[in-house]
Amino acid sequence: MSSKRRPTRSSLIWSSQSGPVAAPRYRPRTPAPAPEGTVGPDTEPRATETVGRAARIRAPRPVAPASRDQRARREPRRRTAEAATQPVVPARPANPVAAGSESGLHPLTDRAMNRRLRDYEERTKRAFDDIVPVLKRLSALGWTPDFEHQAQRIAEAELGFQLPSRLLEDAWVAGLDIRTLFAWTVFETYRRMADEFFLNDPLCGRDTEGFDQMIQDCGFHLFDVTPCADGRLAHAVSYVLRLPFAAVRRKSYAGSLFDVENTVAKWVEVELGRYREGKPNTADTPTRYLKAAIYHYSSVDPTHQGCAAHGSNEAVAATAAIERLSAFREAVENSFCCGASVALLLIGLDTDTDAIRIHLPDAMGQLSPAQGVDAAKVHAMTRDLSAEAARSRIAELVRTHAPASADAGMVRLAAQLIENNLSQIDYVRQYQGGHYPDIGHAERFVGAGIGFEEIQLRNLTYFAYLDTVEEGAADLDVGCTIFRGLNVAHGLPIPVVIRFDYHGRVPGARDRAVQRCQRLDLALADRFEGLAAQGMLHRLLAVRDRDAESGIEVIGDSLGLIVAEGH
Amino acid sequence: MSSKRRPTRSSLIWSSQSGPVAAPRYRPRTPAPAPEGTVGPDTEPRATETVGRAARIRAPRPVAPASRDQRARREPRRRTAEAATQPVVPARPANPVAAGSESGLHPLTDRAMNRRLRDYEERTKRAFDDIVPVLKRLSALGWTPDFEHQAQRIAEAELGFQLPSRLLEDAWVAGLDIRTLFAWTVFETYRRMADEFFLNDPLCGRDTEGFDQMIQDCGFHLFDVTPCADGRLAHAVSYVLRLPFAAVRRKSYAGSLFDVENTVAKWVEVELGRYREGKPNTADTPTRYLKAAIYHYSSVDPTHQGCAAHGSNEAVAATAAIERLSAFREAVENSFCCGASVALLLIGLDTDTDAIRIHLPDAMGQLSPAQGVDAAKVHAMTRDLSAEAARSRIAELVRTHAPASADAGMVRLAAQLIENNLSQIDYVRQYQGGHYPDIGHAERFVGAGIGFEEIQLRNLTYFAYLDTVEEGAADLDVGCTIFRGLNVAHGLPIPVVIRFDYHGRVPGARDRAVQRCQRLDLALADRFEGLAAQGMLHRLLAVRDRDAESGIEVIGDSLGLIVAEGH
Repeated sequence: MSSKRRPTRSSLIWSSQSGPVAAPRYRPRTPAPAPEGTVGPDTEPRATETVGRAARIRAPRPVAPASRDQRARREPRRRTAEAATQPVVPARPANPVAAGSESGLHPLTDRAMNRRLRDYEERTKRAFDDIVPVLKRLSALGWTPDFEHQAQRIAEAELGFQLPSRLLEDAWVAGLDIRTLFAWTVFETYRRMADEFFLNDPLCGRDTEGFDQMIQDCGFHLFDVTPCADGRLAHAVSYVLRLPFAAVRRKSYAGSLFDVENTVAKWVEVELGRYREGKPNTADTPTRYLKAAIYHYSSVDPTHQGCAAHGSNEAVAATAAIERLSAFREAVENSFCCGASVALLLIGLDTDTDAIRIHLPDAMGQLSPAQGVDAAKVHAMTRDLSAEAARSRIAELVRTHAPASADAGMVRLAAQLIENNLSQIDYVRQYQGGHYPDIGHAERFVGAGIGFEEIQLRNLTYFAYLDTVEEGAADLDVGCTIFRGLNVAHGLPIPVVIRFDYHGRVPGARDRAVQRCQRLDLALADRFEGLAAQGMLHRLLAVRDRDAESGIEVIGDSLGLIVAEGH
Repeated sequence: MSSKRRPTRSSLIWSSQSGPVAAPRYRPRTPAPAPEGTVGPDTEPRATETVGRAARIRAPRPVAPASRDQRARREPRRRTAEAATQPVVPARPANPVAAGSESGLHPLTDRAMNRRLRDYEERTKRAFDDIVPVLKRLSALGWTPDFEHQAQRIAEAELGFQLPSRLLEDAWVAGLDIRTLFAWTVFETYRRMADEFFLNDPLCGRDTEGFDQMIQDCGFHLFDVTPCADGRLAHAVSYVLRLPFAAVRRKSYAGSLFDVENTVAKWVEVELGRYREGKPNTADTPTRYLKAAIYHYSSVDPTHQGCAAHGSNEAVAATAAIERLSAFREAVENSFCCGASVALLLIGLDTDTDAIRIHLPDAMGQLSPAQGVDAAKVHAMTRDLSAEAARSRIAELVRTHAPASADAGMVRLAAQLIENNLSQIDYVRQYQGGHYPDIGHAERFVGAGIGFEEIQLRNLTYFAYLDTVEEGAADLDVGCTIFRGLNVAHGLPIPVVIRFDYHGRVPGARDRAVQRCQRLDLALADRFEGLAAQGMLHRLLAVRDRDAESGIEVIGDSLGLIVAEGH
């Protein structure tokens, strides 16, 4: 298994590990503004329509006050622990488009959606990042008889909500309990974020009809994707691939090493739906279940900021994902007769630029880490064309660089994913200077359990998909280590959201989800006993009825406060 | 929810909780020998044939030497801890048939199968029960230069296998390590028992054709049963109900409170098999998935020896099982369209006599704890008839005491189960004097994990069906408490078999099963740290390939010995 890879005639992959810090080889040209008319015609109306629909349900409640000057805050994200954990980004020309500018974008970039996504990301993350500055102001107030009133005024103005009186009124005795206040405020911000997400669908992720039709036209009836559990891939579906989250099955695992048995069980469930209910299509339609895995790497700091589960070795990460994908296919083929099989797809993600790399299987379903097509290169090669010419060139590039025997539907899907990703490449160039400033971990909280559909933002959440601490111990330990650097080293506790989704139409399912939350809470407190005892590991417990498509329901916390009270 | 219950006109149930120790109301008549010709004609040939088939595969390796005088040992089971944990059985006439006698049996009792089952139970349990006497003899030997030779001679003669030299050769230094030797010997006896089970099918449990046809004729395509995890129900399928274990899905849970989501997933899998592969029958056949739960009670000591999970309250146990069954049906009905549903059946078991009680649902699927038919009463009412007349009377009794709207196929199945159980009632009367002497817990080892198809004997194993200690903690704590009384109180360690079955045709499944064993082993040692550190909790780790239908594979133990070595 070589960790070095050279571009071949049949590959659009760059060797990102050819040096300690490989400089991207593409040389962006001088931005040539694409004529406005070439932008995909259906993007603007789509966004507008969805905003309208959401507004009819209930007026959105902004996470952060809308009145503040957003531009003034467009500075690199400040976090208490940032300096301690983030490597210095090598100083080199990033060749971005001008910040916030829309000139120089790829003709197929969905500008309206980029603005919408940016707005959502910015205000959501700011809501979290405002917490520390606000708490610093409260800390600086010192206690006076007017303290509680002043603190609530600041919180209301800056965070958009009041703090629990209980945490303020006793401050005269032993000072303000900043740690508890921090954990509570993170949880409350999360709760508001989740509420907004399920109420307003800010990412238009429930608009699945077009996507469902598209993948069926390509020969698939379900798109099941496993990104790495790393927080830098949490936006893979909604941002990087620009897919409606409600149409995609997402199960994150460390190192993208998904559970084969669990995935076979899902395959069984989906197949039965086709037979019994004709959903998503009837069983006689010759479509397949498509399982994709997303491995990742860092073009800026490949040997340190790649996938921790695979020692930042990109080749190892890709090979491991291929092995797991093949194991899943073999499991289906060997366990079921009558030609049962599945389709596989491997995707690589550069977590610094959000550019993807797609590896297409040959006719036998074999995947190769060495053969693929890189969206960043496609972007560079097609950005000066008209939208129509670019789309046609992309299809040609994907076809040329796929295995000769690749399935036509798979080639078509890959071309669509590459096209979708062009918008995200431009998104990072528009708003992040071409590379994210936070190339390392900078998650705001830990998520543990089953669910978290609302987590669609990069580096917001370190997510451990698990039933029990016992099974997910390794992932939780990694998360804890990350947050020891991000939070504990600066005296702040680790906020953990424990969450289990359930099917409300199944009797007793809610009670069992609640019990699972409580069991996981006890097990977490037990495993990280020292931190928990010192008040450095706080938990919010929440469940959600998946069938009702409602928001989350907070059922408790380790703070002894009813978080939802008064809101 | 009343814990008392009176017989009603439509019920064959006795109130077993009408007094502290309710005396059974049946008055067995003087045994009237049934004519030999009335015994079911296909029982003798079946047993003989299966013995012949097994012998062709490989000569059975007896668990215990076959040469010993079995009759001389037909004494109540002696266990180290028996006195400490078993309540005194009230002295009262048990009205059994003469021990070992075949006269006075019910005409439908399968005498040949009873002998076969008795042989298997007796030699298997003896293999475990011989361990303590043998170790006592070794303990009495004292060390002489000839010790190791003598010890091996005794072990070989009494147990049928040699002991690990490593445990004997250092005895001159600090005496014999009886605790380690005990754990090793229990594990080795278990291993040999499992080997014999999978090799020779001593219970004819793989002979499923007739049963499959019968339940399909009754309108069902799968019989899925959840007994309580209590060791006194471990023989429910093979002995109490006389069903081929390979044809029945058995998932034991404490209090019979099976996992609804897990059962729905199984339903999905079975339905897909019908659609895709026509197994066990095609999806258009109007048969249903049948889910049964077995609750239990003690007629001898109802307030102490009933179900621990329900405080020995029979009515609570039955009601809880009905609730769980109904939740399963609702889950299927609410989660799937097109009239998806399942059939339900509730069975009660008197763990002292092995007599069952069947509660049939009405046409709406509703079950009542108060309405049912009791096999012990049916036995008393039909034992003097001819086989043919008895069978016809049983059908009539079941029909009469079922809800008026009960499904005809369900009535037929219930009549068959009642008939099967008559053999077991006689089995207990023939060999145990009508009531088991061990009415309380007397398990020989703990089983934890997924699998254990070979556990088909009463009170042999305390079984905790679980993926993780975290989820199964309550069940394990109960098991540990039982074995503190049975073993630890007498200085002997608790032997725990950790086991995970896997599907060998799924790539990597064996590795994952091995990892699960190791993870569970660590978690167990962690939860019961004190016991483990003192060498009072030993674990054997084993996996089994379900697809290969092979025996178990021992992968390690906490003794630091390779158990399988040299055998």
